[in-house]
Amino acid sequence: MQTDSTRSTDQTDQTDQTVGRDRSDRPNIVVLYADDLGWGDLGCFGAEYETPALDGLCASGVKLSQWYSNSPVCSPSRASLLTGKYPAHAGVEAILGGTRRTPGLPQQATLASELRRRGYRTGLFGKWHLGASDEYSPSQYGFEETFGIRAGCVDYYSHIFYWGNHNPIHDLWDDDEEVWLNGEYLTTVIGDRAADFIGRHAGEPFFCFVPFNAPHYPMHAPAEYMDRFAHLPEGRQEMAAMVGAMDDAVATILAALAEHGLAENTLVFFSSDNGPSAESRNWLDGEEISYDGGWAGGLRGTKGSVFEGGVREPSIISWPARLPAGTEFDSVGMMMDVLPTVLHAVDGTPADTDAIDGASLMEPLTAAGAPGAGGPDRSVYWTYEGQWAVRRGDLKLVRDAREGMDPPAAVVQALYDLATDPAETTDISAQRSDQLAALTEELSIFQAKNRAWVDAETPAR
Amino acid sequence: MQTDSTRSTDQTDQTDQTVGRDRSDRPNIVVLYADDLGWGDLGCFGAEYETPALDGLCASGVKLSQWYSNSPVCSPSRASLLTGKYPAHAGVEAILGGTRRTPGLPQQATLASELRRRGYRTGLFGKWHLGASDEYSPSQYGFEETFGIRAGCVDYYSHIFYWGNHNPIHDLWDDDEEVWLNGEYLTTVIGDRAADFIGRHAGEPFFCFVPFNAPHYPMHAPAEYMDRFAHLPEGRQEMAAMVGAMDDAVATILAALAEHGLAENTLVFFSSDNGPSAESRNWLDGEEISYDGGWAGGLRGTKGSVFEGGVREPSIISWPARLPAGTEFDSVGMMMDVLPTVLHAVDGTPADTDAIDGASLMEPLTAAGAPGAGGPDRSVYWTYEGQWAVRRGDLKLVRDAREGMDPPAAVVQALYDLATDPAETTDISAQRSDQLAALTEELSIFQAKNRAWVDAETPAR
Repeated sequence: MQTDSTRSTDQTDQTDQTVGRDRSDRPNIVVLYADDLGWGDLGCFGAEYETPALDGLCASGVKLSQWYSNSPVCSPSRASLLTGKYPAHAGVEAILGGTRRTPGLPQQATLASELRRRGYRTGLFGKWHLGASDEYSPSQYGFEETFGIRAGCVDYYSHIFYWGNHNPIHDLWDDDEEVWLNGEYLTTVIGDRAADFIGRHAGEPFFCFVPFNAPHYPMHAPAEYMDRFAHLPEGRQEMAAMVGAMDDAVATILAALAEHGLAENTLVFFSSDNGPSAESRNWLDGEEISYDGGWAGGLRGTKGSVFEGGVREPSIISWPARLPAGTEFDSVGMMMDVLPTVLHAVDGTPADTDAIDGASLMEPLTAAGAPGAGGPDRSVYWTYEGQWAVRRGDLKLVRDAREGMDPPAAVVQALYDLATDPAETTDISAQRSDQLAALTEELSIFQAKNRAWVDAETPAR
Repeated sequence: MQTDSTRSTDQTDQTDQTVGRDRSDRPNIVVLYADDLGWGDLGCFGAEYETPALDGLCASGVKLSQWYSNSPVCSPSRASLLTGKYPAHAGVEAILGGTRRTPGLPQQATLASELRRRGYRTGLFGKWHLGASDEYSPSQYGFEETFGIRAGCVDYYSHIFYWGNHNPIHDLWDDDEEVWLNGEYLTTVIGDRAADFIGRHAGEPFFCFVPFNAPHYPMHAPAEYMDRFAHLPEGRQEMAAMVGAMDDAVATILAALAEHGLAENTLVFFSSDNGPSAESRNWLDGEEISYDGGWAGGLRGTKGSVFEGGVREPSIISWPARLPAGTEFDSVGMMMDVLPTVLHAVDGTPADTDAIDGASLMEPLTAAGAPGAGGPDRSVYWTYEGQWAVRRGDLKLVRDAREGMDPPAAVVQALYDLATDPAETTDISAQRSDQLAALTEELSIFQAKNRAWVDAETPAR
């Protein structure tokens, strides 16, 4: 951890970069990230239960109805969020392991290091999953305070990572020290720790990253949450209970902002790393059957799929001081856009983004709800385990796309019009041969670029 | 569950079997069973830390210094304890699985059904591990009240069974209903539930079976117990903490007996199912290394081994009304002796034991500490996964014996004199060729008998 004197130097350095802006204008940044939350798993995105804290955030902020993860699985999604790059470009194309020797994200600038350079106090509370060994712990990437788990998922009460043939691994860390909070429910602890961070740093700009483990399996929640959703069917009840606990933790965090008078000038972004999991491991009676507790809101596919259900996320951005309340932004956004968007919000001007793949959406977001507001004219891409997809405008081309985590592919190739067919049911390749050709060409270029990233990355891992 | 009227009938039935004994003489029965507890892991058996409740029980009862499990692993050991038979004779030769379809102990009389037939209220609080599907749940074997886990081990806080490539399985049951006690430490819950049972049935004879899961992995304990043993090295600290929590749960149970004036006329037996585990899964940082937290008290071998360290258990029997206090019984006893011994204590005469392999030790135990007190003149046998052992007097013959759970065998064949060489270091085959021949012959006979049991059992499973 750096000393306070070093941090002062950082703050001095960055003054030059914020010429013309009073420091007090700079928003605090809170990024809330759910894990395996489906596009239909929040009240404000159509769930049959309420999520009061997030529903309220949505009502007072901008609902992001076409926001995507860069990947249908965890680690690559997080890599893109924190680096502003496509997963392979960031150096993380697959789910990372959880042994204490697991390497992770190659060293590079992150949203945390960029904000720290600008004088922000940076903290991470929750799940890292971008490397588990000490040299890849989040403290190596610009986070001054970290608390949580380094790997993919844990038992919520003992914080032990159990996976396949590996030995169990206890995985709970306060900065780089292992800590034991036996019996304490992780989601609640994460919310409390994040709120505590906010309280301790209310007098300075801060970046509070809160990647919940919820509602990732194992599916278990405190009894009070199970009772709250006792009317729902099995599976869905567990999902609602885990999401409900997460929503209460979000309420705790938002209350900390309000208590310290920070609600107005804090930019809060909420999303999920990928679509809902239909993995059999969700079930807790050992059955090897698909889990139906999560809901992709009618979209096709689940976690692990490049169909919409795997990558479109229930997302919200709120910054009362600058963004319109109660509006919807229905242009495409992607996790890799978070870094440039946040830096734009902080610096007052778009950052130099040559090194990254995302784009600042500050301007279109500020205009959200106004006629003609839209995002940049671009194509966006996905790839995971041999699947490919590209979207431009309303058209999406998929190749070797599967429905979830497991092969085989359900669709060799198809073109969909998401405006009329968001569930990706009808291949319109024959009717749109010109656009198909153009997207095919674009995808080829991306494939070559992706291959180059992978090749360039290999030696560094 | 049987109705009270049925139970009254049972009580009437058994009056004939207790002619000459007033019902008020019949002791309550409490069997406390630890899991993977080493021969050197209690204060009264030489541990470097205290276990006040069990040390006190030992001081006021009979220390069983040559008491054996019938098997070096869990399920067979429990099968012998409850049926009075060798594992193969009981129909359980191996560790049973934990899916909700896992079959288990073939139907037969058990200590619970025998005591229930004699009018005892019977309860099990803890780990069953003799079948996990409904038709093999403990309620099918004479236990009127059951609470706990059906399979081998769980996370102590979420009560989920995680194993290898299986999906996780939540495993906590109140009678045959699944219950969730998220975040509650299993060892403490077991103690509380057992004490509650004692309180509710203080006015009638009862059999309270308390097979703790502790100190089986995963190794985690409440922080207060870790703090209590902070001076011990890693590994040993965790063991002491888990044993400490179990000892406190035993204190809770003994306090319930005292509170209801039952301490004097309650027979309490304490033991462990097998020797200390040296499995790498004990470690919670994922390392595939052997665990050194448990201690076999200087004996050779660990869980899974037919050497002494795998099968000799830290055992105590206490019945203040009948057994001498503060004495030691240093003749051989075995888990299969518990059923006939307890029935002898209850009935006042040795039960008809033709169907079983164990022997009542009531008489020698009553004489414990007196000159010449000894157990029956017999050989006792062990087998597990191709290992064999036989003991008669102080001589023990082992064949294909290994050190723990994993092959290869460390010793093809050897004869040890446990009186002078309890650690089984020196093969005396050459000096004792006559006795070697006799034991070899006895072992051959047992092997044939064991094979017949296995063959007879197969169709029934």
